[in-house]
Amino acid sequence: MSSLPVSRPENYYTQHAPLGAFASFSIGMIGRPGGFGHALRGPANQNVYVGYQVGGAPWAMLPFFKPPQSNEAAFTGEAATAQAPTNITLLGPADYTRTLGWASDTWTTPAKFAFSILSPFGEVGDPQKLSRAAARQAFSPHVNAWIEFDNTAGREPVRLIFGIGEPDGILRPLEDTAPGLAGFAHGTQWGYATLPGRDVEKRQAFDILNLKFRDYRGLHVIAGETALVFTVPAGKKKRFPLALGFFESGPVTTGIRASYAYTRWFDDLEDVLAHGLKNRAAYEKLAAARDRELARAKLDDDQKFLVAQAAHSYLGSSQLLWGAKGPLWVVNEGEYRMMNTFDLTVDHVFFELRYFPWAVRNALELFATRYAYTDRIKLADGRTAPGGIAFTHDMGVNNQFTPAGRSSYECDHLHGCFSHMTMEQLLNWVLTAVCYAEKTGDTAWLRKRKATLLACAESMRRRDHPDPKRRDGLLKHDSARCGPEGAEITTYDSLDVSLGQARNNLYLSVKALGAWVLLERAFARLKLAREAVAARASADQLAAAVATKFEPETQSFPAVFEKGNRSRIIPAVEGFVYPLYLGIQDATDRQGRFGKLLGLLERHLAGIMQPGVCLDATSGGWKMSSTSTNTWFSKIALAQHVVRRLFPAALSDAARAADRVHADWQRQPGCGEFAMCDQIHSDTGVTCGSRYYPRGVTTILWLDE
Amino acid sequence: MSSLPVSRPENYYTQHAPLGAFASFSIGMIGRPGGFGHALRGPANQNVYVGYQVGGAPWAMLPFFKPPQSNEAAFTGEAATAQAPTNITLLGPADYTRTLGWASDTWTTPAKFAFSILSPFGEVGDPQKLSRAAARQAFSPHVNAWIEFDNTAGREPVRLIFGIGEPDGILRPLEDTAPGLAGFAHGTQWGYATLPGRDVEKRQAFDILNLKFRDYRGLHVIAGETALVFTVPAGKKKRFPLALGFFESGPVTTGIRASYAYTRWFDDLEDVLAHGLKNRAAYEKLAAARDRELARAKLDDDQKFLVAQAAHSYLGSSQLLWGAKGPLWVVNEGEYRMMNTFDLTVDHVFFELRYFPWAVRNALELFATRYAYTDRIKLADGRTAPGGIAFTHDMGVNNQFTPAGRSSYECDHLHGCFSHMTMEQLLNWVLTAVCYAEKTGDTAWLRKRKATLLACAESMRRRDHPDPKRRDGLLKHDSARCGPEGAEITTYDSLDVSLGQARNNLYLSVKALGAWVLLERAFARLKLAREAVAARASADQLAAAVATKFEPETQSFPAVFEKGNRSRIIPAVEGFVYPLYLGIQDATDRQGRFGKLLGLLERHLAGIMQPGVCLDATSGGWKMSSTSTNTWFSKIALAQHVVRRLFPAALSDAARAADRVHADWQRQPGCGEFAMCDQIHSDTGVTCGSRYYPRGVTTILWLDE
Repeated sequence: MSSLPVSRPENYYTQHAPLGAFASFSIGMIGRPGGFGHALRGPANQNVYVGYQVGGAPWAMLPFFKPPQSNEAAFTGEAATAQAPTNITLLGPADYTRTLGWASDTWTTPAKFAFSILSPFGEVGDPQKLSRAAARQAFSPHVNAWIEFDNTAGREPVRLIFGIGEPDGILRPLEDTAPGLAGFAHGTQWGYATLPGRDVEKRQAFDILNLKFRDYRGLHVIAGETALVFTVPAGKKKRFPLALGFFESGPVTTGIRASYAYTRWFDDLEDVLAHGLKNRAAYEKLAAARDRELARAKLDDDQKFLVAQAAHSYLGSSQLLWGAKGPLWVVNEGEYRMMNTFDLTVDHVFFELRYFPWAVRNALELFATRYAYTDRIKLADGRTAPGGIAFTHDMGVNNQFTPAGRSSYECDHLHGCFSHMTMEQLLNWVLTAVCYAEKTGDTAWLRKRKATLLACAESMRRRDHPDPKRRDGLLKHDSARCGPEGAEITTYDSLDVSLGQARNNLYLSVKALGAWVLLERAFARLKLAREAVAARASADQLAAAVATKFEPETQSFPAVFEKGNRSRIIPAVEGFVYPLYLGIQDATDRQGRFGKLLGLLERHLAGIMQPGVCLDATSGGWKMSSTSTNTWFSKIALAQHVVRRLFPAALSDAARAADRVHADWQRQPGCGEFAMCDQIHSDTGVTCGSRYYPRGVTTILWLDE
Repeated sequence: MSSLPVSRPENYYTQHAPLGAFASFSIGMIGRPGGFGHALRGPANQNVYVGYQVGGAPWAMLPFFKPPQSNEAAFTGEAATAQAPTNITLLGPADYTRTLGWASDTWTTPAKFAFSILSPFGEVGDPQKLSRAAARQAFSPHVNAWIEFDNTAGREPVRLIFGIGEPDGILRPLEDTAPGLAGFAHGTQWGYATLPGRDVEKRQAFDILNLKFRDYRGLHVIAGETALVFTVPAGKKKRFPLALGFFESGPVTTGIRASYAYTRWFDDLEDVLAHGLKNRAAYEKLAAARDRELARAKLDDDQKFLVAQAAHSYLGSSQLLWGAKGPLWVVNEGEYRMMNTFDLTVDHVFFELRYFPWAVRNALELFATRYAYTDRIKLADGRTAPGGIAFTHDMGVNNQFTPAGRSSYECDHLHGCFSHMTMEQLLNWVLTAVCYAEKTGDTAWLRKRKATLLACAESMRRRDHPDPKRRDGLLKHDSARCGPEGAEITTYDSLDVSLGQARNNLYLSVKALGAWVLLERAFARLKLAREAVAARASADQLAAAVATKFEPETQSFPAVFEKGNRSRIIPAVEGFVYPLYLGIQDATDRQGRFGKLLGLLERHLAGIMQPGVCLDATSGGWKMSSTSTNTWFSKIALAQHVVRRLFPAALSDAARAADRVHADWQRQPGCGEFAMCDQIHSDTGVTCGSRYYPRGVTTILWLDE
């Protein structure tokens, strides 16, 4: 095998985000600003000042700011030049240790300095049923942080600093609107605060470390840089709390007009920050519980890093809105900001069902009521036929809900990227719905959606063939929405044809198999015996049809059952994650009803999990397809889970060792420049799409291994 | 004399702005984006697509966009590269004529293409008394535009395009929320629209001129570039209307919590855009009236350009808010975004009293109620004494109203920039208040503020000397807020000591003289005979004291009556603008009570209005001070008015010719990169502060010459 050496130093952004605010406080890249960002497609661009000063020594600062081009010059008429920071020692990665927990991110130095940002998460009840107090606790749009110095052995006072400089804006002292807060805010939208005290100094200046102009209270509120400076006396160890908050008032979405849910429970930013400081113990406790849980998990350090970084970026894309009909759950698609992209919803289901299953139901309902449509399919002779129910790829983009039955992504007359994903989303509704109902036991909801489930089964069969006698289980018909010239694609839109084309696609066929298995379970749960039997028959038929595609000569499956395709793909086994997840043992039993197919898939995997095929020849990382160097981390994580659980014998040593490679991708600037990234060049580890991305939480599956 | 040759091409941004929305649509710089900006300190960064296509020829486009780094690559996983526009001929300044009117900005080409943006303004009544319909008409946060092609002689259809691409955001089709509008919006905050029609096509794509992906309605709503494309058939001339709108809902300020006044009269952006299109005839008529008025004015073309460009930037900084106590008028200070900087209020008074005098009263009231304070002054022996009423430099910054009695700008313990401007603001309240009352005849208000006026007179005298017997009229005492180490400055904060120091300052002394003249008038109006007499006596005393500072050997006044200062300044005469403006003839009569001083000032001016003194040796532009190359255009304009009206004999040919220089400064990138700029290096014409600045409307005074 070949694999990249572990690259040092680690150098990556992490999104520190509350649940449901579509907002992050992002820092971590060496030499790069970050800070508060709402609804952005990447980190913000604020100077973040974090550091300490022992006595009169220079400030020792974490490297998260750039020397600001002093706005002083704009007033004094002098030439504006970026001023090199004076009185500063910039800490490099050799000077500090960074520890990313599941719900924390902590920098410590041997000098006994520590700074930590917490983004706790955990089980959250249905927001429609929560008390006001519980809703405030769950959805406060803030994260807690703290800054500390152990000066017990020190002989001089130590000063600690936390500050923000916004290059295009000017912050305001929070004391003007909230005497109980020491800190600064940008308008009504974001800010940071601690509790006032004699050991807390507020600063606002052109150069926050070298004060030059001070007004009656020591500030200069026309200046762009702000900070809180804390004093730790000699002989003492002190930790100071911080709250970093967001607030967007009023309607933020169009199409469906909705505001942030938190605006129901909080008056303004000041309310949020005060709440965050007052209740910090509970948030710290929750973060510690998550951190401990991950630390104790039977995962290696690379896996733990990936689980932790993924959760951070997921939270940053999460958004709980409230419209005329109540709560609206949205996960925004990272840099693309598409809303509830169904391809992501189905992958987030494992994370969301663990912590807030109502979110899954909420998205399923909106897909069923607003983003479902009645499709037609294209026949070989150019005519169209009824296709049955279908669902859109997404619900909109950038806070605009698209019109009913329409996505923001899908275009007509295409064969590749931006075409329709009709079969994919049909399967996604089935899989997501049954996972939700089975995991939560919410059979009442399943019953309510019985007609939808039945329509889905019918639509799946029609896409195989309108004539029941000519069905074999494989998708052979594209949605008429593609137009005469177009063809459906799969979620793997940016890969080559191996995963791009929907018809006769190995990945999509096995995923359909998973959907039939879940439909059988759902119909049985609903006591629809005949439909359960029929679903079982469809599954068996499909499994048999897929098995016939195995090539004895290559001991593997082609990615597409057409045109002599010779690509090899790992997502061949993706569809088995659903029966595995729900514990439907007769579907995953190697001696059971799909035993033959599972055996073939194991041989397929054993053959392709080799360097130069589906392990990158340069890096050793997992490649979705043998014929594309564009690989997707969230899908690697999902496939790893399925392979380790169902096909452990197919795991080569090289394949097993790749966690280090995948973690290094994310820990280095190639991906780390945009926090968690999903689409990655498997040879270089550099992202090529899906930046600042929520879907890495498929790693939650690893905790079930 | 020396003067810059007229530089071509003209190359400058202009702010196209409605009244009171603190928002501009800025374009005009060659090769630079612009577009919609709210509360910014410079032009926005959107691609603005304006052009035409004859038949199948390449698009001929105005140069207001950069080739977007196609976001397509982020989806397809390919390397993102800025794509050179294809199918485009970029028009250069040789290809079009740009005509800036007082309320319009129009580009025409010999090919019979024309594009125009209108920003009409005119008399507006008190917003508290306006009908809803009148308020909507006056304060709709939009500007109208139109695009036209004369294809009467053409044999092929012509297409016209107007479009916007926002690099960090994604627009949405307006038809989803307003079927009566064809256009696009960025969230709920800004957008553009025309009326739907068969000759109007909507486009949204990664590359707006070369469509590649189209959804069911021909758009691709995940893409960042949008446009409207209009068709002009062969043989026809057609003009299509556009509305460019802004909308910020909810409270936008802190300190005093207030929302935009327009949110009282408009529901949302769609309402604004529909209103703008429906009522375009009235707006076009008003713009045409303003344009005609300026065109007919007895000014040269350079002056007309300066008057026009100034009005555009003024409107962009104007802001009408509504708080718990009613309307709040704010003019933001350009790039600094300080709110109602009093130094600007006093200079805007000539423009505002012409069109919306209630705005002046509104600001005066807030200064009198919230931003006045009782000051103490510093004595020579280190003690302090009562100083009387004083006013802050400003009311806050960047939408935060500072606490009562405190500005955002003023700091303590300083001698230069950022020190207190106490005497300056005291005079500003007097001058602004009396100008308002005299011009409007609102003696009722003057009566209401009688105590404030009396307190101002008392404060002015105390700052001369606490002991009445030792007064000579000159300011000799600094505010105690400066601290033991500090000293008051004047509004000319970034110049050298010639205009920086307040004590014994020639400029401030003559300005104080103007204030005494106006106080005499106001007290007479209020039938306070004794106080009128006393004000007159103070004026006479001050005039006599100033006259003693004339240096016979140099035939001029020193800028500061201290320490052998030898700087020469043009603002020596600034204070006479107020009696001149109000027609107080006995104060401006060369044979009258100030005849001696006026005579000395004329000799002063005649001596300094020479190259190398107060005309820049390189450029020929007017310099505020002989010892600083930082000059301020708004103050030049004001001084020009006073000199031309009161001291025409002092005008050298070189001084008279400088309009061309001053206009070229603003027409070239050195200033034009930020629309109207105020602080300018007199040798290079490059701005050194006060960018995107409202104060150029002192040019309105020229219309009275």
